Amino acid sequence: MSAGEVRAAVSGERLTAAYRLTGSEVQARETALAIAIEQSVEFPRHLLPPGNIADDVVGRLEALERRAHGVWRATLSFAVENTAFELTQLLNALYGNASLFRGVRLERFDLPPSLYARLPGPRFGPEGLRKRLRVGARPLVATALKPMGLDAEALAVRAGQLAASGIDLVKDDHGLTDQPYAPWRERVARAAAAVAEASARAGHTTLYLPNVTAPTDRLLERAHAARALGAGGLLVSPGVAGFDAMRLLAADGELDLPILAHPSLLGSFVLAEDQGFSFEALFGEVMRLSGADAVIFPSYGGRFPLTPSTCRAIADALAAPLGPLRRALPVPAGGMTVERVAEMVSFYGADVVLLIGGDLFADGPDPSARARRLVERVAAWAGEAAGA
Amino acid sequence: MSAGEVRAAVSGERLTAAYRLTGSEVQARETALAIAIEQSVEFPRHLLPPGNIADDVVGRLEALERRAHGVWRATLSFAVENTAFELTQLLNALYGNASLFRGVRLERFDLPPSLYARLPGPRFGPEGLRKRLRVGARPLVATALKPMGLDAEALAVRAGQLAASGIDLVKDDHGLTDQPYAPWRERVARAAAAVAEASARAGHTTLYLPNVTAPTDRLLERAHAARALGAGGLLVSPGVAGFDAMRLLAADGELDLPILAHPSLLGSFVLAEDQGFSFEALFGEVMRLSGADAVIFPSYGGRFPLTPSTCRAIADALAAPLGPLRRALPVPAGGMTVERVAEMVSFYGADVVLLIGGDLFADGPDPSARARRLVERVAAWAGEAAGA
Repeated sequence: MSAGEVRAAVSGERLTAAYRLTGSEVQARETALAIAIEQSVEFPRHLLPPGNIADDVVGRLEALERRAHGVWRATLSFAVENTAFELTQLLNALYGNASLFRGVRLERFDLPPSLYARLPGPRFGPEGLRKRLRVGARPLVATALKPMGLDAEALAVRAGQLAASGIDLVKDDHGLTDQPYAPWRERVARAAAAVAEASARAGHTTLYLPNVTAPTDRLLERAHAARALGAGGLLVSPGVAGFDAMRLLAADGELDLPILAHPSLLGSFVLAEDQGFSFEALFGEVMRLSGADAVIFPSYGGRFPLTPSTCRAIADALAAPLGPLRRALPVPAGGMTVERVAEMVSFYGADVVLLIGGDLFADGPDPSARARRLVERVAAWAGEAAGA
Repeated sequence: MSAGEVRAAVSGERLTAAYRLTGSEVQARETALAIAIEQSVEFPRHLLPPGNIADDVVGRLEALERRAHGVWRATLSFAVENTAFELTQLLNALYGNASLFRGVRLERFDLPPSLYARLPGPRFGPEGLRKRLRVGARPLVATALKPMGLDAEALAVRAGQLAASGIDLVKDDHGLTDQPYAPWRERVARAAAAVAEASARAGHTTLYLPNVTAPTDRLLERAHAARALGAGGLLVSPGVAGFDAMRLLAADGELDLPILAHPSLLGSFVLAEDQGFSFEALFGEVMRLSGADAVIFPSYGGRFPLTPSTCRAIADALAAPLGPLRRALPVPAGGMTVERVAEMVSFYGADVVLLIGGDLFADGPDPSARARRLVERVAAWAGEAAGA
């Protein structure tokens, strides 16, 4: 090592990130090299000190492939040490400043073993969740407590009706936090009790998942209170609370609760095809790295604009290999109906959570009859599948 | 109140949110009414219970104005109670599910007094920051410790050189967290000591702002350690750590440190003109509600694609009235140079922080000479302004 040389201690382990770029090949290469700098040292390349920073810490352009006319895929690698083995810094290193460029979309990334060791992902995954529910290979059914504005008692009555009808997962609507209409602790206590009672009486397991998306200083408090009050899982909106907040809940061995992730605020990260994250990267990779056991997304055919092929890609990404991480269950939602169960199971397969909300109330304020119909349709499907 | 009627207890205080919508007038009205539901009860309107939920809890369409051919502005109001007086739920209520629609952008929002009382915004603002620095009405100058890969000692040497040269704010590069190259505690301790020593010797005040963007369970620990080690402010990337995490730091009376916000990951929220938040809403409103005293954004004329008019709008929004909240200082950055000082001050005015990073090293590894030139240029500007 000559005088003035800087040696950054790198292990040689690197992560790779593939970006979708637009323009001519020359422009794409220029953008890729800009990302290599922007997402690491943020320092003019020619002013870097002698030594290995330029070679090892700065991103390396590993490949630039043409995908379509004017569309390129650049694969870069970065020293794993750049991430400090933190989820927050990993997200920053993957896309922080690049989010401010035009025409740069993070398509996918691959992490080395040392990062997966620090970010173990879903605590339960499909198998763990099924074990908690004591159900085998059939679609799970879920619904949401709503509407906002009801008091805790009215919501608890609905929770009890839904549990009595055999719904597997009863979650809070993601907008229910600590409104005066139904204060958090009272709502969670009453709903958890109603679900436990109805579930015991009916002889099956229904888990209640209160929403613990909360101010940073209340997050752990609410999650632990939820467990103490009888919650069987947690609903979290990582776009609102932060991905790392969700990871922290998943990593909490005392909580030991399955996590259902809601996509609130995340549309802006995925809807523009030349910006943000690919659906697969955000829902399949980031969500699992952040500990989600099941991931809600707006399904085709509902109130939101996703196409069948995008929904297929999300479901596939949630089940695709991702280091040693568990899979997560897809939870298509956003305007689903009891009448569409067969179609949805045929599309998504049996490893799915069918989340049907408002439609259970289509016949009136007591959701029991439609909830039972939903449960029966899934049971019929499972019976046919078993007999086939 | 008739039997079966539900009365949600609302105060009558409402917040308003204005969305940019696209399409025909009929389509825009339909989308606006969908937002009214989606951003509150998420429940079919015709199935809501009798009572006041449909009138008070569901959003009200207050106005629909034509802005251009096929472009509309819908103003909706919501009961303030929907937000539970939490920043997390406020963000969810403003744009959570709407982020998953196409062609819906949050342009601005206005909050009632009860919300501002819970979200007091910047602790310092321009005046408070100037007081800490003991400087009057001149542009402030800032720079970043970089590049990643240097060890803590090398970064501290640079910090000392920059402080000795009269730079007001020396921040960590936003990618520096706890990498093995320069572990967090060692880097912050050494850099803070170097800044304090150089600053005392030179007889002026330089504040060192370490990056405390961190995993959720390390955030407060790092922030308080930073203060104990001599930090004069904090750098936070709310797109990575969460807006509420930044709010929590701003609200912490024991910390009592000015906060500089970095826009990492936030590009996806603002770059598509028909999606996300307007620059004014995100940088001018959300950032201040989340406690930022100064807000970094990529200036025109650097490495990022923002136009002068967008930068003007951001700077104006940071100074615009926002309930009782303090203003925040604009921090144009992203490829600024010493040579552009006069132009930038002429564009942004004296209430600005000029953040110049890599360019201070354009003449070699010791940034002292260029840093002094930067400080002198600002002093000359202030002298002329005082003499004028």
